[in-house]
Amino acid sequence: MIRVVLIGGGNVAFHLQKALHRAPGISLRQVVSRRLESLSDFESGVPRAILGAPLERADIYLLAVADQAIAPVSALLRDKDGLVVHTSGATGLEALEGLRRRGVFYPLQTFSRKRALDMAAIPLCIETEHPKDLSLLRSLAAALSRTVVELPLDKRRHLHLAAVFVNNFSNHMVHLGQAHCRQQGLEESLLRPLLEETCDKLGCMPAYDAQTGPARRNDRATEEAHRKLIENPLLRELYERISESIQETYD
Amino acid sequence: MIRVVLIGGGNVAFHLQKALHRAPGISLRQVVSRRLESLSDFESGVPRAILGAPLERADIYLLAVADQAIAPVSALLRDKDGLVVHTSGATGLEALEGLRRRGVFYPLQTFSRKRALDMAAIPLCIETEHPKDLSLLRSLAAALSRTVVELPLDKRRHLHLAAVFVNNFSNHMVHLGQAHCRQQGLEESLLRPLLEETCDKLGCMPAYDAQTGPARRNDRATEEAHRKLIENPLLRELYERISESIQETYD
Repeated sequence: MIRVVLIGGGNVAFHLQKALHRAPGISLRQVVSRRLESLSDFESGVPRAILGAPLERADIYLLAVADQAIAPVSALLRDKDGLVVHTSGATGLEALEGLRRRGVFYPLQTFSRKRALDMAAIPLCIETEHPKDLSLLRSLAAALSRTVVELPLDKRRHLHLAAVFVNNFSNHMVHLGQAHCRQQGLEESLLRPLLEETCDKLGCMPAYDAQTGPARRNDRATEEAHRKLIENPLLRELYERISESIQETYD
Repeated sequence: MIRVVLIGGGNVAFHLQKALHRAPGISLRQVVSRRLESLSDFESGVPRAILGAPLERADIYLLAVADQAIAPVSALLRDKDGLVVHTSGATGLEALEGLRRRGVFYPLQTFSRKRALDMAAIPLCIETEHPKDLSLLRSLAAALSRTVVELPLDKRRHLHLAAVFVNNFSNHMVHLGQAHCRQQGLEESLLRPLLEETCDKLGCMPAYDAQTGPARRNDRATEEAHRKLIENPLLRELYERISESIQETYD
Protein backbone atom coordinates (compact mmCIF):
# COMPACT_ATOMS: atom_id res chain seq x y z
CA MET A 1 0.00 0.00 0.00
CA ILE A 2 1.44 3.38 -1.02
CA ARG A 3 0.42 6.05 1.48
CA VAL A 4 -0.23 9.45 -0.13
CA VAL A 5 -0.85 12.94 1.24
CA LEU A 6 -2.22 15.31 -1.39
CA ILE A 7 -1.67 19.05 -1.01
CA GLY A 8 -3.74 21.42 -3.13
CA GLY A 9 -7.35 22.48 -3.59
CA GLY A 10 -7.43 23.41 -7.28
CA ASN A 11 -8.61 21.57 -10.36
CA VAL A 12 -5.61 19.25 -10.65
CA ALA A 13 -5.85 18.31 -6.96
CA PHE A 14 -9.59 17.75 -7.34
CA HIS A 15 -9.17 15.21 -10.14
CA LEU A 16 -6.14 13.56 -8.52
CA GLN A 17 -7.89 12.96 -5.18
CA LYS A 18 -10.84 11.38 -6.97
CA ALA A 19 -8.54 8.97 -8.80
CA LEU A 20 -6.27 8.32 -5.80
CA HIS A 21 -9.24 7.53 -3.59
CA ARG A 22 -10.31 4.75 -5.97
CA ALA A 23 -6.96 3.40 -7.11
CA PRO A 24 -5.92 -0.10 -5.99
CA GLY A 25 -2.80 -0.23 -3.81
CA ILE A 26 -3.07 3.46 -2.88
CA SER A 27 -4.08 4.82 0.51
CA LEU A 28 -4.97 8.50 0.33
CA ARG A 29 -4.28 9.54 3.90
CA GLN A 30 -5.09 13.23 3.84
CA VAL A 31 -5.99 16.13 1.57
CA VAL A 32 -4.58 19.51 2.53
CA SER A 33 -5.25 23.04 1.34
CA ARG A 34 -4.69 26.66 2.32
CA ARG A 35 -8.46 27.00 2.56
CA LEU A 36 -10.71 24.18 3.78
CA GLU A 37 -13.50 25.43 1.49
CA SER A 38 -11.48 24.37 -1.55
CA LEU A 39 -11.85 20.80 -0.32
CA SER A 40 -15.61 20.92 0.18
CA ASP A 41 -16.40 18.87 -2.94
CA PHE A 42 -13.53 16.38 -2.39
CA GLU A 43 -14.21 12.69 -1.59
CA SER A 44 -15.97 12.57 1.77
CA GLY A 45 -14.06 9.61 3.23
CA VAL A 46 -10.64 11.31 3.25
CA PRO A 47 -9.38 13.36 6.24
CA ARG A 48 -8.93 17.05 5.44
CA ALA A 49 -6.49 19.53 6.91
CA ILE A 50 -5.57 23.13 6.50
CA LEU A 51 -2.06 23.86 5.28
CA GLY A 52 0.20 24.34 8.30
CA ALA A 53 -1.57 21.77 10.47
CA PRO A 54 0.32 18.50 11.18
CA LEU A 55 0.53 16.21 8.15
CA GLU A 56 -0.11 12.48 8.13
CA ARG A 57 2.88 10.24 7.58
CA ALA A 58 3.10 9.21 3.89
CA ASP A 59 5.33 7.52 1.33
CA ILE A 60 4.59 10.25 -1.18
CA TYR A 61 3.58 13.88 -0.68
CA LEU A 62 1.90 15.10 -3.84
CA LEU A 63 1.96 18.89 -4.32
CA ALA A 64 -0.78 19.84 -6.78
CA VAL A 65 -0.37 23.57 -6.25
CA ALA A 66 0.36 26.60 -8.46
CA ASP A 67 3.94 26.79 -9.73
CA GLN A 68 4.76 29.77 -7.49
CA ALA A 69 3.43 27.93 -4.43
CA ILE A 70 5.70 24.89 -4.84
CA ALA A 71 8.70 26.45 -3.05
CA PRO A 72 6.82 27.93 -0.04
CA VAL A 73 4.74 24.78 0.44
CA SER A 74 7.73 22.48 0.17
CA ALA A 75 9.36 24.47 2.98
CA LEU A 76 6.71 22.96 5.27
CA LEU A 77 7.84 19.45 4.35
CA ARG A 78 11.55 19.61 5.25
CA ASP A 79 11.20 17.18 8.15
CA LYS A 80 9.48 14.50 6.07
CA ASP A 81 11.07 11.20 5.13
CA GLY A 82 8.71 10.58 2.20
CA LEU A 83 9.19 11.42 -1.45
CA VAL A 84 7.87 14.91 -2.30
CA VAL A 85 6.71 15.52 -5.87
CA HIS A 86 5.09 18.47 -7.63
CA THR A 87 2.72 18.31 -10.61
CA SER A 88 4.09 21.15 -12.74
CA GLY A 89 5.03 20.67 -16.40
CA ALA A 90 7.31 23.69 -16.48
CA THR A 91 9.12 23.46 -13.14
CA GLY A 92 12.28 21.58 -12.17
CA LEU A 93 13.19 19.71 -9.01
CA GLU A 94 14.96 22.77 -7.59
CA ALA A 95 11.61 24.32 -6.66
CA LEU A 96 11.36 21.64 -3.98
CA GLU A 97 13.95 23.48 -1.91
CA GLY A 98 15.87 21.75 0.83
CA LEU A 99 14.12 18.38 0.48
CA ARG A 100 16.04 15.10 0.50
CA ARG A 101 13.77 13.07 -1.81
CA ARG A 102 12.32 15.01 -4.71
CA GLY A 103 10.38 14.22 -7.86
CA VAL A 104 7.86 15.33 -10.45
CA PHE A 105 4.48 13.85 -11.27
CA TYR A 106 3.07 15.82 -14.22
CA PRO A 107 -0.35 14.83 -15.61
CA LEU A 108 -0.65 16.05 -19.22
CA GLN A 109 -4.25 17.26 -19.41
CA THR A 110 -6.48 20.34 -19.13
CA PHE A 111 -8.30 20.14 -15.82
CA SER A 112 -11.68 21.76 -15.29
CA ARG A 113 -13.49 20.99 -12.07
CA LYS A 114 -16.85 20.31 -13.68
CA ARG A 115 -15.56 17.73 -16.16
CA ALA A 116 -15.52 14.03 -15.47
CA LEU A 117 -12.05 12.83 -16.46
CA ASP A 118 -10.70 9.34 -16.92
CA MET A 119 -7.33 9.48 -15.16
CA ALA A 120 -6.38 6.11 -16.66
CA ALA A 121 -6.19 7.78 -20.10
CA ILE A 122 -4.04 10.71 -18.96
CA PRO A 123 -0.29 10.47 -19.58
CA LEU A 124 1.68 10.84 -16.36
CA CYS A 125 5.20 12.19 -16.80
CA ILE A 126 7.46 11.33 -13.90
CA GLU A 127 10.98 12.16 -12.74
CA THR A 128 12.89 11.61 -9.49
CA GLU A 129 16.20 12.98 -8.28
CA HIS A 130 17.40 9.63 -6.93
CA PRO A 131 17.05 6.53 -9.15
CA LYS A 132 15.97 4.49 -6.12
CA ASP A 133 12.81 6.64 -5.80
CA LEU A 134 11.77 6.04 -9.37
CA SER A 135 10.10 2.67 -8.85
CA LEU A 136 7.96 4.03 -6.00
CA LEU A 137 6.77 6.95 -8.13
CA ARG A 138 6.26 4.66 -11.09
CA SER A 139 4.05 2.41 -8.95
CA LEU A 140 1.90 5.33 -7.91
CA ALA A 141 1.58 6.50 -11.52
CA ALA A 142 0.85 3.01 -12.83
CA ALA A 143 -1.95 2.62 -10.28
CA LEU A 144 -3.65 5.64 -11.82
CA SER A 145 -2.86 5.63 -15.53
CA ARG A 146 -2.14 3.34 -18.46
CA THR A 147 0.48 5.79 -19.78
CA VAL A 148 3.50 6.49 -17.60
CA VAL A 149 6.66 8.05 -19.08
CA GLU A 150 9.87 9.09 -17.42
CA LEU A 151 10.79 12.55 -18.66
CA PRO A 152 13.55 14.91 -17.49
CA LEU A 153 12.81 18.64 -17.08
CA ASP A 154 14.04 19.64 -20.52
CA LYS A 155 11.76 17.20 -22.35
CA ARG A 156 8.86 17.83 -20.00
CA ARG A 157 9.06 21.57 -20.66
CA HIS A 158 8.92 21.02 -24.39
CA LEU A 159 5.95 18.71 -23.98
CA HIS A 160 4.25 21.31 -21.80
CA LEU A 161 4.89 23.97 -24.44
CA ALA A 162 3.39 21.70 -27.13
CA ALA A 163 0.38 21.19 -24.85
CA VAL A 164 -0.11 24.96 -24.58
CA PHE A 165 -0.45 25.14 -28.37
CA VAL A 166 -2.65 22.05 -28.66
CA ASN A 167 -5.04 23.08 -25.90
CA ASN A 168 -4.76 26.67 -24.63
CA PHE A 169 -4.05 28.35 -27.96
CA SER A 170 -6.43 26.31 -30.11
CA ASN A 171 -9.15 26.87 -27.51
CA HIS A 172 -8.46 30.61 -27.58
CA MET A 173 -8.81 30.67 -31.38
CA VAL A 174 -12.23 29.09 -31.03
CA HIS A 175 -13.13 31.68 -28.40
CA LEU A 176 -12.04 34.54 -30.69
CA GLY A 177 -14.24 33.18 -33.48
CA GLN A 178 -17.22 32.67 -31.18
CA ALA A 179 -16.78 36.15 -29.67
CA HIS A 180 -16.52 37.77 -33.12
CA CYS A 181 -19.74 36.06 -34.15
CA ARG A 182 -21.57 37.39 -31.09
CA GLN A 183 -20.17 40.89 -31.55
CA GLN A 184 -21.54 40.94 -35.09
CA GLY A 185 -24.98 39.87 -33.92
CA LEU A 186 -24.65 36.55 -35.72
CA GLU A 187 -26.03 33.30 -34.30
CA GLU A 188 -23.10 31.54 -32.64
CA SER A 189 -24.80 28.21 -33.38
CA LEU A 190 -23.92 28.72 -37.07
CA LEU A 191 -20.33 27.85 -36.12
CA ARG A 192 -21.31 24.63 -34.34
CA PRO A 193 -21.12 22.15 -37.27
CA LEU A 194 -17.77 23.65 -38.31
CA LEU A 195 -16.40 23.23 -34.79
CA GLU A 196 -17.61 19.64 -34.67
CA GLU A 197 -16.01 18.80 -38.01
CA THR A 198 -12.79 20.55 -36.93
CA CYS A 199 -12.64 18.23 -33.91
CA ASP A 200 -13.69 15.13 -35.84
CA LYS A 201 -10.93 15.70 -38.39
CA LEU A 202 -8.34 16.19 -35.66
CA GLY A 203 -9.45 12.88 -34.20
CA CYS A 204 -8.52 10.96 -37.32
CA MET A 205 -5.76 12.83 -39.15
CA PRO A 206 -2.73 14.98 -38.31
CA ALA A 207 -3.64 18.69 -38.08
CA TYR A 208 -1.14 19.23 -40.91
CA ASP A 209 -3.38 17.26 -43.30
CA ALA A 210 -6.61 18.81 -42.02
CA GLN A 211 -5.71 22.41 -42.83
CA THR A 212 -7.92 24.38 -45.26
CA GLY A 213 -8.78 28.07 -45.67
CA PRO A 214 -7.44 31.29 -47.18
CA ALA A 215 -3.94 31.15 -45.68
CA ARG A 216 -3.49 27.51 -46.70
CA ARG A 217 -4.34 28.31 -50.32
CA ASN A 218 -2.43 31.60 -50.34
CA ASP A 219 -5.58 33.60 -50.99
CA ARG A 220 -4.25 37.11 -50.35
CA ALA A 221 -7.43 38.88 -51.49
CA THR A 222 -9.50 37.17 -48.78
CA GLU A 223 -6.80 37.81 -46.19
CA GLU A 224 -6.83 41.50 -47.09
CA ALA A 225 -10.64 41.63 -46.88
CA HIS A 226 -10.52 39.94 -43.46
CA ARG A 227 -7.79 42.26 -42.22
CA LYS A 228 -10.01 45.23 -42.92
CA LEU A 229 -12.88 43.73 -40.94
CA ILE A 230 -10.84 43.47 -37.73
CA GLU A 231 -10.92 46.54 -35.54
CA ASN A 232 -8.89 45.31 -32.54
CA PRO A 233 -5.17 45.91 -33.36
CA LEU A 234 -3.95 42.85 -31.40
CA LEU A 235 -6.51 40.65 -33.14
CA ARG A 236 -5.47 42.03 -36.52
CA GLU A 237 -1.85 41.29 -35.74
CA LEU A 238 -2.78 37.76 -34.65
CA TYR A 239 -4.63 37.25 -37.92
CA GLU A 240 -1.58 38.33 -39.92
CA ARG A 241 1.04 36.39 -37.96
CA ILE A 242 -0.97 33.16 -37.83
CA SER A 243 -1.70 33.37 -41.58
CA GLU A 244 2.03 33.91 -42.12
CA SER A 245 2.81 30.88 -39.95
CA ILE A 246 0.37 28.72 -41.95
CA GLN A 247 2.03 29.87 -45.18
CA GLU A 248 5.47 29.12 -43.72
CA THR A 249 4.25 25.63 -42.78
CA TYR A 250 3.11 24.71 -46.28
CA ASP A 251 5.83 26.52 -48.24
CA MET B 1 -37.76 19.97 -59.99
CA ILE B 2 -34.87 22.45 -59.72
CA ARG B 3 -32.32 21.84 -62.47
CA VAL B 4 -28.74 22.49 -61.38
CA VAL B 5 -25.41 22.68 -63.22
CA LEU B 6 -22.42 22.52 -60.87
CA ILE B 7 -19.11 24.05 -61.92
CA GLY B 8 -16.00 23.12 -59.97
CA GLY B 9 -13.81 20.11 -59.26
CA GLY B 10 -12.47 20.92 -55.78
CA ASN B 11 -13.48 19.78 -52.32
CA VAL B 12 -16.56 22.00 -52.02
CA ALA B 13 -17.81 20.88 -55.46
CA PHE B 14 -17.14 17.26 -54.54
CA HIS B 15 -19.32 17.38 -51.44
CA LEU B 16 -22.02 19.49 -53.12
CA GLN B 17 -22.44 17.11 -56.07
CA LYS B 18 -22.79 14.17 -53.71
CA ALA B 19 -25.57 15.95 -51.80
CA LEU B 20 -27.24 17.41 -54.91
CA HIS B 21 -27.33 14.01 -56.57
CA ARG B 22 -29.33 12.60 -53.68
CA ALA B 23 -31.52 15.56 -52.73
CA PRO B 24 -35.26 15.33 -53.38
CA GLY B 25 -36.60 17.87 -55.86
CA ILE B 26 -33.17 18.52 -57.37
CA SER B 27 -31.96 17.42 -60.78
CA LEU B 28 -28.22 17.67 -61.10
CA ARG B 29 -27.87 18.02 -64.87
CA GLN B 30 -24.13 18.33 -65.29
CA VAL B 31 -20.84 18.70 -63.45
CA VAL B 32 -18.19 20.86 -65.08
CA SER B 33 -14.51 21.44 -64.42
CA ARG B 34 -11.38 22.84 -66.04
CA ARG B 35 -9.92 19.35 -65.88
CA LEU B 36 -12.01 16.21 -66.31
CA GLU B 37 -9.69 14.33 -63.95
CA SER B 38 -10.97 16.42 -61.05
CA LEU B 39 -14.37 14.84 -61.62
CA SER B 40 -13.15 11.25 -61.67
CA ASP B 41 -14.49 10.44 -58.19
CA PHE B 42 -17.79 12.33 -58.68
CA GLU B 43 -21.14 10.48 -58.79
CA SER B 44 -21.11 8.25 -61.85
CA GLY B 45 -24.67 8.94 -63.02
CA VAL B 46 -24.12 12.65 -63.72
CA PRO B 47 -22.93 13.94 -67.14
CA ARG B 48 -19.50 15.55 -67.02
CA ALA B 49 -18.11 18.33 -69.15
CA ILE B 50 -14.94 20.31 -69.45
CA LEU B 51 -15.19 24.04 -68.78
CA GLY B 52 -15.81 25.82 -72.11
CA ALA B 53 -17.95 23.02 -73.59
CA PRO B 54 -21.68 23.74 -73.98
CA LEU B 55 -23.57 23.77 -70.71
CA GLU B 56 -26.88 22.09 -69.97
CA ARG B 57 -29.85 24.36 -69.43
CA ALA B 58 -30.47 24.89 -65.69
CA ASP B 59 -32.44 26.91 -63.19
CA ILE B 60 -29.34 27.43 -61.08
CA TYR B 61 -25.65 27.44 -62.04
CA LEU B 62 -23.61 26.73 -58.94
CA LEU B 63 -20.00 27.98 -59.09
CA ALA B 64 -17.95 26.07 -56.51
CA VAL B 65 -14.62 27.45 -57.67
CA ALA B 66 -11.73 29.37 -56.09
CA ASP B 67 -12.53 33.02 -55.33
CA GLN B 68 -10.23 34.28 -58.10
CA ALA B 69 -11.91 31.99 -60.63
CA ILE B 70 -15.43 33.33 -60.01
CA ALA B 71 -15.09 36.30 -62.39
CA PRO B 72 -13.48 34.46 -65.33
CA VAL B 73 -15.87 31.50 -65.03
CA SER B 74 -18.93 33.71 -64.77
CA ALA B 75 -17.88 35.36 -68.05
CA LEU B 76 -18.75 32.05 -69.73
CA LEU B 77 -22.32 32.25 -68.38
CA ARG B 78 -23.43 35.63 -69.74
CA ASP B 79 -25.97 34.14 -72.13
CA LYS B 80 -27.71 32.06 -69.45
CA ASP B 81 -31.21 32.78 -68.19
CA GLY B 82 -30.71 30.85 -64.96
CA LEU B 83 -29.62 32.14 -61.57
CA VAL B 84 -25.83 32.08 -61.14
CA VAL B 85 -24.47 31.72 -57.60
CA HIS B 86 -20.98 31.35 -56.16
CA THR B 87 -20.03 29.57 -52.92
CA SER B 88 -17.52 32.03 -51.46
CA GLY B 89 -17.83 33.38 -47.93
CA ALA B 90 -15.68 36.42 -48.62
CA THR B 91 -16.84 37.51 -52.08
CA GLY B 92 -19.71 39.79 -53.09
CA LEU B 93 -22.14 39.58 -56.00
CA GLU B 94 -19.98 41.90 -58.08
CA ALA B 95 -17.58 39.04 -58.86
CA LEU B 96 -20.35 37.57 -61.01
CA GLU B 97 -19.67 40.22 -63.65
CA GLY B 98 -22.24 41.09 -66.29
CA LEU B 99 -24.81 38.51 -65.19
CA ARG B 100 -28.49 39.35 -64.90
CA ARG B 101 -29.46 37.03 -62.04
CA ARG B 102 -26.82 36.67 -59.33
CA GLY B 103 -26.60 35.16 -55.89
CA VAL B 104 -24.44 33.51 -53.23
CA PHE B 105 -24.70 30.04 -51.76
CA TYR B 106 -22.05 29.76 -49.02
CA PRO B 107 -21.77 26.50 -47.09
CA LEU B 108 -20.10 27.15 -43.71
CA GLN B 109 -17.83 24.15 -43.30
CA THR B 110 -14.26 22.89 -43.79
CA PHE B 111 -14.28 20.56 -46.78
CA SER B 112 -11.76 17.76 -47.15
CA ARG B 113 -12.32 15.31 -49.94
CA LYS B 114 -11.73 12.20 -47.86
CA ARG B 115 -14.26 13.07 -45.17
CA ALA B 116 -17.86 11.93 -45.25
CA LEU B 117 -19.95 15.02 -44.51
CA ASP B 118 -23.61 15.38 -43.65
CA MET B 119 -24.71 18.30 -45.81
CA ALA B 120 -28.01 18.48 -43.89
CA ALA B 121 -26.09 19.70 -40.83
CA ILE B 122 -24.11 22.38 -42.68
CA PRO B 123 -25.44 25.96 -42.48
CA LEU B 124 -26.07 27.38 -45.95
CA CYS B 125 -25.84 31.17 -46.16
CA ILE B 126 -27.70 32.56 -49.13
CA GLU B 127 -28.15 35.94 -50.82
CA THR B 128 -29.64 37.04 -54.16
CA GLU B 129 -29.51 40.36 -55.98
CA HIS B 130 -33.22 40.30 -56.90
CA PRO B 131 -35.74 39.45 -54.17
CA LYS B 132 -37.69 37.32 -56.66
CA ASP B 133 -34.74 34.91 -56.96
CA LEU B 134 -34.55 34.34 -53.23
CA SER B 135 -37.29 31.72 -52.98
CA LEU B 136 -35.69 29.62 -55.75
CA LEU B 137 -32.31 29.68 -54.00
CA ARG B 138 -33.95 29.04 -50.66
CA SER B 139 -35.67 25.95 -52.11
CA LEU B 140 -32.36 24.61 -53.35
CA ALA B 141 -30.72 25.22 -49.97
CA ALA B 142 -33.63 23.74 -48.02
CA ALA B 143 -33.44 20.57 -50.12
CA LEU B 144 -29.87 20.10 -48.89
CA SER B 145 -29.69 21.46 -45.35
CA ARG B 146 -31.72 21.97 -42.21
CA THR B 147 -30.07 25.36 -41.63
CA VAL B 148 -30.59 28.06 -44.24
CA VAL B 149 -29.93 31.72 -43.43
CA GLU B 150 -30.15 34.79 -45.63
CA LEU B 151 -27.00 36.85 -45.08
CA PRO B 152 -25.76 39.93 -46.94
CA LEU B 153 -22.07 40.24 -47.87
CA ASP B 154 -21.09 42.27 -44.82
CA LYS B 155 -22.48 39.72 -42.35
CA ARG B 156 -21.26 36.77 -44.41
CA ARG B 157 -17.72 38.14 -44.40
CA HIS B 158 -17.73 38.48 -40.63
CA LEU B 159 -19.05 34.93 -40.28
CA HIS B 160 -16.33 33.70 -42.65
CA LEU B 161 -13.70 35.52 -40.58
CA ALA B 162 -15.06 33.91 -37.40
CA ALA B 163 -14.87 30.53 -39.17
CA VAL B 164 -11.20 31.11 -40.00
CA PHE B 165 -10.46 31.47 -36.27
CA VAL B 166 -12.66 28.54 -35.22
CA ASN B 167 -11.28 26.13 -37.80
CA ASN B 168 -8.14 27.23 -39.68
CA PHE B 169 -6.37 28.93 -36.77
CA SER B 170 -7.32 26.45 -34.06
CA ASN B 171 -6.25 23.61 -36.36
CA HIS B 172 -2.93 25.35 -36.98
CA MET B 173 -2.31 25.67 -33.23
CA VAL B 174 -2.80 21.92 -32.90
CA HIS B 175 -0.39 21.39 -35.79
CA LEU B 176 2.25 23.62 -34.16
CA GLY B 177 1.98 21.60 -30.93
CA GLN B 178 2.14 18.28 -32.76
CA ALA B 179 5.11 19.45 -34.85
CA HIS B 180 6.97 20.73 -31.78
CA CYS B 181 6.48 17.37 -30.11
CA ARG B 182 7.93 15.52 -33.11
CA GLN B 183 10.86 17.94 -33.39
CA GLN B 184 11.75 17.23 -29.77
CA GLY B 185 11.67 13.49 -30.33
CA LEU B 186 8.64 13.13 -28.05
CA GLU B 187 5.83 10.67 -28.74
CA GLU B 188 3.07 12.66 -30.42
CA SER B 189 0.55 10.22 -28.96
CA LEU B 190 1.19 11.79 -25.53
CA LEU B 191 -0.85 14.78 -26.75
CA ARG B 192 -3.80 12.65 -27.85
CA PRO B 193 -5.84 12.59 -24.58
CA LEU B 194 -5.33 16.35 -24.22
CA LEU B 195 -6.58 16.94 -27.76
CA GLU B 196 -9.61 14.75 -27.13
CA GLU B 197 -10.48 16.55 -23.91
CA THR B 198 -9.97 19.92 -25.66
CA CYS B 199 -12.56 18.90 -28.24
CA ASP B 200 -14.94 17.34 -25.71
CA LYS B 201 -14.93 20.52 -23.64
CA LEU B 202 -15.60 22.67 -26.71
CA GLY B 203 -18.56 20.42 -27.47
CA CYS B 204 -20.27 21.25 -24.20
CA MET B 205 -19.13 24.69 -23.04
CA PRO B 206 -18.15 28.03 -24.58
CA ALA B 207 -14.41 28.21 -25.32
CA TYR B 208 -14.32 31.19 -22.95
CA ASP B 209 -15.20 28.90 -20.00
CA ALA B 210 -12.90 26.08 -21.12
CA GLN B 211 -9.66 28.10 -21.03
CA THR B 212 -6.84 26.99 -18.71
CA GLY B 213 -3.05 27.30 -18.81
CA PRO B 214 -0.24 29.75 -18.01
CA ALA B 215 -1.64 32.76 -19.91
CA ARG B 216 -5.09 32.30 -18.35
CA ARG B 217 -3.63 32.32 -14.84
CA ASN B 218 -1.11 35.08 -15.59
CA ASP B 219 1.83 32.78 -14.90
CA ARG B 220 4.66 34.96 -16.25
CA ALA B 221 7.43 32.66 -15.07
CA THR B 222 6.15 29.76 -17.19
CA GLU B 223 5.61 32.06 -20.16
CA GLU B 224 9.19 33.25 -19.89
CA ALA B 225 10.46 29.66 -19.65
CA HIS B 226 8.43 28.70 -22.74
CA ARG B 227 9.62 31.75 -24.68
CA LYS B 228 13.19 30.64 -24.19
CA LEU B 229 12.43 27.17 -25.54
CA ILE B 230 11.16 28.49 -28.89
CA GLU B 231 13.83 28.93 -31.53
CA ASN B 232 11.68 29.99 -34.50
CA PRO B 233 11.18 33.80 -34.23
CA LEU B 234 7.70 33.75 -35.81
CA LEU B 235 6.62 30.99 -33.44
CA ARG B 236 8.00 32.93 -30.48
CA GLU B 237 6.09 36.01 -31.56
CA LEU B 238 2.92 33.94 -31.92
CA TYR B 239 3.40 32.57 -28.41
CA GLU B 240 3.73 36.09 -27.02
CA ARG B 241 0.86 37.68 -28.93
CA ILE B 242 -1.59 34.84 -28.26
CA SER B 243 -0.72 34.82 -24.56
CA GLU B 244 -1.30 38.58 -24.57
CA SER B 245 -4.66 38.09 -26.28
CA ILE B 246 -5.70 35.51 -23.68
CA GLN B 247 -4.73 37.93 -20.91
CA GLU B 248 -6.67 40.74 -22.63
CA THR B 249 -9.70 38.41 -22.82
CA TYR B 250 -9.79 37.65 -19.09
CA ASP B 251 -8.68 41.05 -17.79
